[in-house]
Amino acid sequence: MNPSVWLIGAGPGDPELLTLKAVRALGLADVVLIDDLVNPQVLEHCPGARVIRVGKRGGCRSTPQAFIHRLMLRYARQGKVVARLKGGDPCIFGRGGEEADWLAARGVQCEIVNGITSGLAAATRCGISLTLRGVARGVTLVTAHTQDGSSPNWQALAHSGTTLVVYMGIATLADTRQHLLDAGMAAHTAVAMIENASLPDQRECRSTLLAMANDAQAFELKSPAILVIGDVVGAATILAAEQLQVHSA
Amino acid sequence: MNPSVWLIGAGPGDPELLTLKAVRALGLADVVLIDDLVNPQVLEHCPGARVIRVGKRGGCRSTPQAFIHRLMLRYARQGKVVARLKGGDPCIFGRGGEEADWLAARGVQCEIVNGITSGLAAATRCGISLTLRGVARGVTLVTAHTQDGSSPNWQALAHSGTTLVVYMGIATLADTRQHLLDAGMAAHTAVAMIENASLPDQRECRSTLLAMANDAQAFELKSPAILVIGDVVGAATILAAEQLQVHSA
Repeated sequence: MNPSVWLIGAGPGDPELLTLKAVRALGLADVVLIDDLVNPQVLEHCPGARVIRVGKRGGCRSTPQAFIHRLMLRYARQGKVVARLKGGDPCIFGRGGEEADWLAARGVQCEIVNGITSGLAAATRCGISLTLRGVARGVTLVTAHTQDGSSPNWQALAHSGTTLVVYMGIATLADTRQHLLDAGMAAHTAVAMIENASLPDQRECRSTLLAMANDAQAFELKSPAILVIGDVVGAATILAAEQLQVHSA
Repeated sequence: MNPSVWLIGAGPGDPELLTLKAVRALGLADVVLIDDLVNPQVLEHCPGARVIRVGKRGGCRSTPQAFIHRLMLRYARQGKVVARLKGGDPCIFGRGGEEADWLAARGVQCEIVNGITSGLAAATRCGISLTLRGVARGVTLVTAHTQDGSSPNWQALAHSGTTLVVYMGIATLADTRQHLLDAGMAAHTAVAMIENASLPDQRECRSTLLAMANDAQAFELKSPAILVIGDVVGAATILAAEQLQVHSA
């Protein structure tokens, strides 16, 4: 049986990064709830559906989460198939699990469709290998923005040996820099800040841990943006420089 | 201009989790190199292409990486469009970046197509929210299997406040347990071990940090499997138990 509500990851922005399952679910949908970080081009897959915009971007003109919950529930109880489109992956800082649990507790069957999370796509489009062998032991996805104002354990993350990918981190760059410097991370650690990942207007600012807050300001970097911190960011450049040295030796 | 070589993430197994871009690239391909962790059902999108299996799974009947590199280069230089299909995402423990750099250094244009990484899909299919608010500050993807025999910094990871997702970690469960216990992670920390994520024969074993090695053995858990460690694994159960208490109070 098909679920009443599909919670769909629309990916990082490039409409071609939608999955086949997301396309099928959109084709079944009577009502589509779309976040404002989702590229509206993906709506070509649901030409007959009613589309409701439920953006929640940073403060202004937002739709409260409780209202979105009730909206999904109302349509599902009317027998409509609901597709809820979220940017990236619904379960990476997307509250997909919370929405699914809330609906399940009210007897509404729900299916989550994974999407390409923005941090991974941002790195790939900039030629950064997040888990490059010999350089990083893995990758950590964190958000700098939380409702309760708490911070990630930057001390532990600085020593984890993993590449750090920070979502929603542009407003708190100066704080993040200070936490990581205090934790002993090298000031010259390479950083990439990527705006509008995977879209034609993607912009990328390369910097260092020490300089990233100033560089982002000079670059006029805007949200939504992804922050990648770690030696893998500089790895391609290092490789190129080493080859240059060999050739000129 | 289209690239000569596409490095494509085929996702975790469910053929519907392929992206539209992957489908388009497969349709353009003259030659398809397929890893043995990729679901062969995705080959329906390239009915006219020559298919070469280049599996590298754990030791036996493997195709050396250098041979795969040369194979891609040879076909690209013949003017053929090559699609290289990898399980999950090409850049999450997939060497996608290394292959792209190697080809670029030889003048072959290459494009990486992101895929849904297995760890995220495995968690979603088990109802686990890897970044559940108030429970985890993020998620760390690591591999327990490395060529040089080095280990992740389990000490730092245990204190990171992030959910840990371990790829290729089944053979070293006892070691991982010991490292995390030594680092002070609670013995009762919830663990999920997921075999064949997103496929019809997906199997899931719930356990704890203390018991995971024994439980995996009793469960006859086989590779490839994903290990998820952290309080988010138990969160759904905790929530259900709390609701039960409220109702029975």
